[in-house]
Amino acid sequence: MTMNDPRSTFVKMALDAWNSELRYTNALLEKLSDEQLMQAVAPGRNRGIYLLGHLAAVHDQMLPLLRFQATIHPALYIPFHDEPDGAVDELPSISQLRAQWKEVNDALVNHMKGLAPEEWFTRHANISEEDFPKEMHRNRLNVVISRTNHLAYHRGQLALLSSK
Amino acid sequence: MTMNDPRSTFVKMALDAWNSELRYTNALLEKLSDEQLMQAVAPGRNRGIYLLGHLAAVHDQMLPLLRFQATIHPALYIPFHDEPDGAVDELPSISQLRAQWKEVNDALVNHMKGLAPEEWFTRHANISEEDFPKEMHRNRLNVVISRTNHLAYHRGQLALLSSK
Repeated sequence: MTMNDPRSTFVKMALDAWNSELRYTNALLEKLSDEQLMQAVAPGRNRGIYLLGHLAAVHDQMLPLLRFQATIHPALYIPFHDEPDGAVDELPSISQLRAQWKEVNDALVNHMKGLAPEEWFTRHANISEEDFPKEMHRNRLNVVISRTNHLAYHRGQLALLSSK
Repeated sequence: MTMNDPRSTFVKMALDAWNSELRYTNALLEKLSDEQLMQAVAPGRNRGIYLLGHLAAVHDQMLPLLRFQATIHPALYIPFHDEPDGAVDELPSISQLRAQWKEVNDALVNHMKGLAPEEWFTRHANISEEDFPKEMHRNRLNVVISRTNHLAYHRGQLALLSSK
């Protein structure tokens, strides 16, 4: 694996996009107060707290999906993924969610840093070793590309909570 | 260039993400009425019409940026990119914008289909031939990755206009 291996370039492209999107989201979350995060992004729509928990839950699930480690906060998944906003009465506080969001992303980024370019093109956890050679695009880097878009989608909504 | 060239796999990953995001956006736009697109996505925020024009303007600019062809609707750029929503009184109608959006994306997708995998890793128009060898990630495929995230960001906002 040399610097000229096209895989190195592609890994850089996908991870740069992920890191930018995460950086923009963190800058936005820092700007939003806990009170703003308790508001709905538009009348009758999801609240900021729900979107923050949803993103933390989905990023936590990336840890096993990328075959890095077990989830850190599996309890987030039901209230912030399976159930819609408003269905669960007892949610963690915003400050707990901020800490969990950071913890999950720090774990992800640490594992990502240690992964060699060629390792990114091995299977993710939702495809078997047997099927992978027939669908080589279902690799770990593809999970990052798809979750980057997921993050951008919800960041667009969270941005509506910021002061104009 | 064989099917085993890793570049074929990367190109498929990035274009699959682009095509999915475009398909989701088109399904959403089909569901939204012209009246819904005249509403703001949240109180005091951009209207659907502005976001539709903005996306069409940005995708139109991808045509020269990807070195495919000249822009088709350069007149969209000032009212829907340089100026904020509300600053320009005379905007095209929603039905005009829907047609322009389709026209621009059809042109993009046609060029994309014809581009060989190795061509995707050549420079985009905003970097010179001289500088490109020092920054090989600034290639045409990277434009697609970044515009896919841009589209996801605004699709998250447009989704707030749909009926619950």
